[in-house]
Amino acid sequence: MRQRLLRYIPAIGWLRRYDRHALGNDVAAAALVTVIVIPQSLAFALLAGLPAEAGLYASILPCIFYAIFGTSNTLAVGPVALISLMSAAAVGDVATQGTAGFMIASIYLALLSGLILLVMGLLRLGFLSNFISHPVISGFITASGILIAASQMKYLMGIDVPGDNAVELALGFYRNMDETSFPTLALGLPALAFLYLMRDHLGPFLAQIKVSNRVSVILVRLGPVIAVVVATILVSWLNLAQQGIDVVGEVPAGLPPLALPQGSLELIQNLMVPAMLISIVTFVESVSLAHKLAARRHERIDPDQELLGLGTANIASAFSGGFAVAGGFSRSIINYDAGARTPAAGAFTAIGIGLITLFFTPLFSNLPKAVLAAAIIISVLSLVDFRAVRETWKYSRHDGAALVGTIGVTLVFGVIPGILTGIALSLILYLWRTSRPHSALVGRIRGSEAFRNIARHDVETDPRVLILRVDESLYFANARYLEDRVFTVIEEQPQLEEFILMCPAVNYIDASALDSLEAINGRLHDAGIRLHLSEVKGPVMDKLNQSRFLQGLNGDVFMTTYEAWCELRTKPANTDPGAVHPDS
Amino acid sequence: MRQRLLRYIPAIGWLRRYDRHALGNDVAAAALVTVIVIPQSLAFALLAGLPAEAGLYASILPCIFYAIFGTSNTLAVGPVALISLMSAAAVGDVATQGTAGFMIASIYLALLSGLILLVMGLLRLGFLSNFISHPVISGFITASGILIAASQMKYLMGIDVPGDNAVELALGFYRNMDETSFPTLALGLPALAFLYLMRDHLGPFLAQIKVSNRVSVILVRLGPVIAVVVATILVSWLNLAQQGIDVVGEVPAGLPPLALPQGSLELIQNLMVPAMLISIVTFVESVSLAHKLAARRHERIDPDQELLGLGTANIASAFSGGFAVAGGFSRSIINYDAGARTPAAGAFTAIGIGLITLFFTPLFSNLPKAVLAAAIIISVLSLVDFRAVRETWKYSRHDGAALVGTIGVTLVFGVIPGILTGIALSLILYLWRTSRPHSALVGRIRGSEAFRNIARHDVETDPRVLILRVDESLYFANARYLEDRVFTVIEEQPQLEEFILMCPAVNYIDASALDSLEAINGRLHDAGIRLHLSEVKGPVMDKLNQSRFLQGLNGDVFMTTYEAWCELRTKPANTDPGAVHPDS
Repeated sequence: MRQRLLRYIPAIGWLRRYDRHALGNDVAAAALVTVIVIPQSLAFALLAGLPAEAGLYASILPCIFYAIFGTSNTLAVGPVALISLMSAAAVGDVATQGTAGFMIASIYLALLSGLILLVMGLLRLGFLSNFISHPVISGFITASGILIAASQMKYLMGIDVPGDNAVELALGFYRNMDETSFPTLALGLPALAFLYLMRDHLGPFLAQIKVSNRVSVILVRLGPVIAVVVATILVSWLNLAQQGIDVVGEVPAGLPPLALPQGSLELIQNLMVPAMLISIVTFVESVSLAHKLAARRHERIDPDQELLGLGTANIASAFSGGFAVAGGFSRSIINYDAGARTPAAGAFTAIGIGLITLFFTPLFSNLPKAVLAAAIIISVLSLVDFRAVRETWKYSRHDGAALVGTIGVTLVFGVIPGILTGIALSLILYLWRTSRPHSALVGRIRGSEAFRNIARHDVETDPRVLILRVDESLYFANARYLEDRVFTVIEEQPQLEEFILMCPAVNYIDASALDSLEAINGRLHDAGIRLHLSEVKGPVMDKLNQSRFLQGLNGDVFMTTYEAWCELRTKPANTDPGAVHPDS
Repeated sequence: MRQRLLRYIPAIGWLRRYDRHALGNDVAAAALVTVIVIPQSLAFALLAGLPAEAGLYASILPCIFYAIFGTSNTLAVGPVALISLMSAAAVGDVATQGTAGFMIASIYLALLSGLILLVMGLLRLGFLSNFISHPVISGFITASGILIAASQMKYLMGIDVPGDNAVELALGFYRNMDETSFPTLALGLPALAFLYLMRDHLGPFLAQIKVSNRVSVILVRLGPVIAVVVATILVSWLNLAQQGIDVVGEVPAGLPPLALPQGSLELIQNLMVPAMLISIVTFVESVSLAHKLAARRHERIDPDQELLGLGTANIASAFSGGFAVAGGFSRSIINYDAGARTPAAGAFTAIGIGLITLFFTPLFSNLPKAVLAAAIIISVLSLVDFRAVRETWKYSRHDGAALVGTIGVTLVFGVIPGILTGIALSLILYLWRTSRPHSALVGRIRGSEAFRNIARHDVETDPRVLILRVDESLYFANARYLEDRVFTVIEEQPQLEEFILMCPAVNYIDASALDSLEAINGRLHDAGIRLHLSEVKGPVMDKLNQSRFLQGLNGDVFMTTYEAWCELRTKPANTDPGAVHPDS
């Protein structure tokens, strides 16, 4: 019982060892994270199509729940760009932005994702996230980064451009370009330039003047905070909101009520597929980030428990007026570099943001959206990684195709079709590859016990004995191919009497492949050819012993191919198959 | 050009060699097939929820198109039980049985399946059918057989029971049982008994009195024809239709018009998923049957070209008032045993059924539905294969679970969710298995060059050198697992300096696994451990050479594990890694 509690509520473990030293570190990290994530949280709420305060709400309770159930000491959860974009796209299909229905749908999307993550965690289904290959994730993130940057351009230009794919956005910009607000541009472009310089040149400069790396990372991340503060002061001072510069406007003060709005069954049905996709992306991204951070400090995380942490965080977000959350890259890096020791840092961040939501929201009313957009654009540019495209393509055409396909579909059709296509491409290309496994006819290297590819080496062969080596596990996707391959090679060899299937690379034979082996055995039998196996691995042999295949096999199973070769080759032609064993 | 024509229209090839001998055989086979498939075609139309004549229409043009584009000499296409049931279930979701909309939807379903098959054929996508494992197909067929038999019971009892899953059917029977028509039962039960005896006992009896196997097969298959003829005569003679016995009723004479009814875009969207599933089942079932028949005569078929044959057959069916068709087991067996030589036999069958549709439809009006139902029930019982369940379960829990899951979902939720679940289960269980590959720490068998599992053998080890053998290709589904496994084993071995990954069973390393190898390399580097590879296969090594992984590798790649062992083991501790090569 106690073990179970400890396993499901990691907080019990670290709270018992909690001391003043950890407290000091955690509070310091939380203070820094609070300041830095405020502009982010507001901006990602806008990206998700929601009022700015939703971003604050999504950074309070979720942090506390992740602190209780999560296993990473440094992962900080809250709104993140990728998930906010997916939320906007999914909810945009069932409701109109700006309506109450849109907010309700966003909340239900977070609730469903949370429940899915929770159930996956309780059933220990973390392995399901393995279904997406890295190139697909990388392509998806690159394309999403481009989409996010493109979608934020409208705030920089002060125009209205709807759409959640590159085609719609491009059309929208083309149509509405002449409505560009130049005051907005005059504020946004310098902000963009400033943020770009901060991100790309402040770090190297600080390194030159020997500022330590940890301090440098934090100073660089303060860029958006500085931009937001300066811009807000400018707008208030010069009364720019009257000049047509779009601002965040009044943000209600006070904590969100703990309640779930009324939703319909139809809404839940419509959001089910996007919620699944969002949970997968949330899990994959958060866990890979948590892994990286943990590895640096030689800590470990438990992926299945992470599902519970992320699941409860999303459910908490839904119950407190937030939207879908995940482990965020930049808030986690700050948390890590500022020296957070335990998940308590997350809880302290929640308290910090809670205080701000209670007392300081009036400060945000004059915050210009153009500057928030500039901050998003600069931050997502680091998601775009074309070098990975080139490298992946060079390494493997299949992986490269999956990556390019995912980027293409995401850009043209949007994030939901994009990630679906990516998952399908991962699987299809994998199955396609293993469905035509590498196989080679082999012969004996003269004077040795080794057998090599006939096409590549000068080897000894025998027209009555054929040896085929298959370099893949045998399973449903390649069972038919194996049959075809065997029948093709035996057709070309009319004198054939003994056929040896060499299995050193066969790690598994599933029931479909067993059917095919039986079919091959039957057909070879009809043709007067015996089927032998050689170098069958232990676990595979154990399985075969449980089936009736070996009883029906009209040849033998040999430990080594050389043994089979000696026995079958020295056998005089046309003898009784019962009297096969020679004296040699 | 000519090669292309020959490839896409196999009929050109065999027509040039066509002679009187083949003609005689084909016509004789076609005559027999025509007689035997008439009751079947009528019955499967009823099973698909359509008027009886649709079954005849679906046996005319499709046969001709398959004869032109198909590659099997003996496969006979037309309505088949499994596809008819799937068609009824899919169309039942969008239209009400007995309405014009139902017929239109059935036609569009055939059209869409045909187009999907055709496109798959033109793109040579036959390999996609490999995605369903044999156990899943076998479970699906068993469950469908049970569902078909259950759905036909209503005709035997003369009551109305709607529903396309076992739960609905059971409830329906329970509710309407008291309306059972005893005259119908009095006709149907003897027919059932007669057909059962014909199927199971006529063959052995004929074998005893030395009737040849070929003749015996044909006589056995004549059972339904005899039952139908006798029952029709009885009904006409005793005027049983007036006694409440349900008959086929008036079947319009004449060939169907060549036209496609008006359909809507919404209908097409709703039928898209079922059409895909029907095409996959059509293809898998027809091709596996064609393969078996071809193998017996040492002929070959071309699966990709079969897609064109089956696709055009379905499109032709849609344009002539039919419904979804496939290669039928019993009609093909008759065709084979009656000695069909070329696909022309199919075209002659089409002519035979055409003549019957033109001139003999009045004969069917008094055909009792109960006897058709009895014929279906007896014929589908052979689809139910519980032995396969037991054997598969015994051989592999995974395959067994996929099989049982498919049967369960098909029975409880119907055929469409059933086959979807089956496909998902095949893939998930496969990925789950390969996502936790077998791996073993190995040591050297004293005095040899062989390395074996430490847990199983008494082997020589070294606390500074660890060798891990992974028995699976490395790809996205197991990339994370590999990382975890490596970090776990190195944690347990504090003196470790050299880590060797032994790769004799690694047939492929995809981009995701390459990322993981890089992560492992980096993390081992941080821990002061070098990463080496041994026994990397040629094709895998070629790939690695195209990546930057080998430049970053902080250890070496060795041809054999023994070589690595000699070099790394004799290395004096704590020397410069640049001066590793010993003199030995």
